[in-house]
Amino acid sequence: MQYTSETMERLIRELTKLPGIGRKTAQRLVFHLLKQPKESVVFLSDALLDLKEKIILCSQCYNITETDPCPICANPRRDRRVLCVVEEANDVLAIEKTEQYRGLYHVLGGVLNPLDGIGPEAIRIKELIRRITPDVKEVILAINPDVQGDTTVLYLSEQLKSYPLRLTRIARGIPIGSDLEFADQVTLTRALEGRQTINLSGQG
Amino acid sequence: MQYTSETMERLIRELTKLPGIGRKTAQRLVFHLLKQPKESVVFLSDALLDLKEKIILCSQCYNITETDPCPICANPRRDRRVLCVVEEANDVLAIEKTEQYRGLYHVLGGVLNPLDGIGPEAIRIKELIRRITPDVKEVILAINPDVQGDTTVLYLSEQLKSYPLRLTRIARGIPIGSDLEFADQVTLTRALEGRQTINLSGQG
Repeated sequence: MQYTSETMERLIRELTKLPGIGRKTAQRLVFHLLKQPKESVVFLSDALLDLKEKIILCSQCYNITETDPCPICANPRRDRRVLCVVEEANDVLAIEKTEQYRGLYHVLGGVLNPLDGIGPEAIRIKELIRRITPDVKEVILAINPDVQGDTTVLYLSEQLKSYPLRLTRIARGIPIGSDLEFADQVTLTRALEGRQTINLSGQG
Repeated sequence: MQYTSETMERLIRELTKLPGIGRKTAQRLVFHLLKQPKESVVFLSDALLDLKEKIILCSQCYNITETDPCPICANPRRDRRVLCVVEEANDVLAIEKTEQYRGLYHVLGGVLNPLDGIGPEAIRIKELIRRITPDVKEVILAINPDVQGDTTVLYLSEQLKSYPLRLTRIARGIPIGSDLEFADQVTLTRALEGRQTINLSGQG
C-alpha cells in the first residue's frame, strides 16, 4: 500500500491508540482536520498539552484538578461529614452532574483485583482511612457493582467497621456489570437516594 | 453543574467538534489521556500540528502530500495516459488500497451542488481540463453515486465530450447513496474493472 503522507500516517497511528477509535474513524478524523482552518487544529493541540501540564491530583480527595485543594474540597458549603468513595475521577463528574450530593469525595484510583495483582496498597485505601476524622459521620461507597467492586466494598467495610460512622453503598439500581460513568442522571440520583447501610452480620 | 477543571472542559469542547464524537465519548477520551504518560499526549499534539504544517496540495493532481509533486504524480511508473477523477483526497487513498490502479488522479475538491451554491468554478474542473493533453487516453470518473455526483458526472461528460479520449465511470457496484470511502477493497476493485463508457446519446 502506498500512502501519500507519512505525517498523516503518524497522526492516524496516534489516534488509533485512543479507546473506541479504529483505523477508518482515525482516517475520517484526519481528513476532517485537514479541511479545518489551522487555528482550530492548533486549539486542539494546545488543549491536549494543557491537559498534561495543568492537571494535577487534589492532595485531599485525589480528584483531578487545576488547583490544590480542588474546588470541591475548597468549597466551604460542601458537607464535610460525608465522604463519597469512588473508583476514578470520572465517577466524581458523573455524581456531580446529578446535583444531589453535597459532601466530599475520595478517589481510590482503582479497585481491588487480586488476579491482576492490585492489592489494597495499590489503591488509595490508606489515604481514605487517614481522612476518617471524628467529624466524618458517613462514608458512601459509590463503587461500580461488578466483581472487583464488590471485593473492594467488602474489604473497605472490614477496614471501616470499627469507626463510629454510617457506612453505605449506593443502591444497585445501576445495571450489574456496567460502568457508573454511563448511568443516566436520574438512575444515579435514585441510586444515591436509595443507598443502604452495610450490615456485616450477613443480611442485606 | 460544577466541573473540576476548565482545562478539561476546553479539551472536551474541542473534541466534540470532531465528527462522530459526542460529549460522553470526548469525556472518555480525556480521562483516557489523563492516565497516559505525558509523552504519548505530546506525540498526539505534535502529530496534529504537523498535519497542518507539513501537508500541502499537489500542484498537479491536488491530492494531499508533503512533497510537490506528490509521490503518485512523481512516480515514473504510473501510467500518464489515464486520469482518475475523484471528489476528495480520501478517495485517492481508498482506490490506492485496491492496488489495481496505475494511472494518475485528479482531486476535484467537491462535487457540483447548485442548491448549496457550489458551481463549476468552485471545484477544480478548469484545472482538470488543463490537464487533458493529447497523451491522455482515458478519464475515469470515480465520483460517489449520489445526486450531486451524478450531476457532476453529467457536467464533466459535456465538458470532455469534444476530446479524443475514452470517458468512463466506475461501475455502480457501490451501494447508491453511500460514500466511496467506506467501500471495501474488493467492491472497489470490481467497480474499477467494470467501468463503463459514458454514452451521451441516451442509452447506457
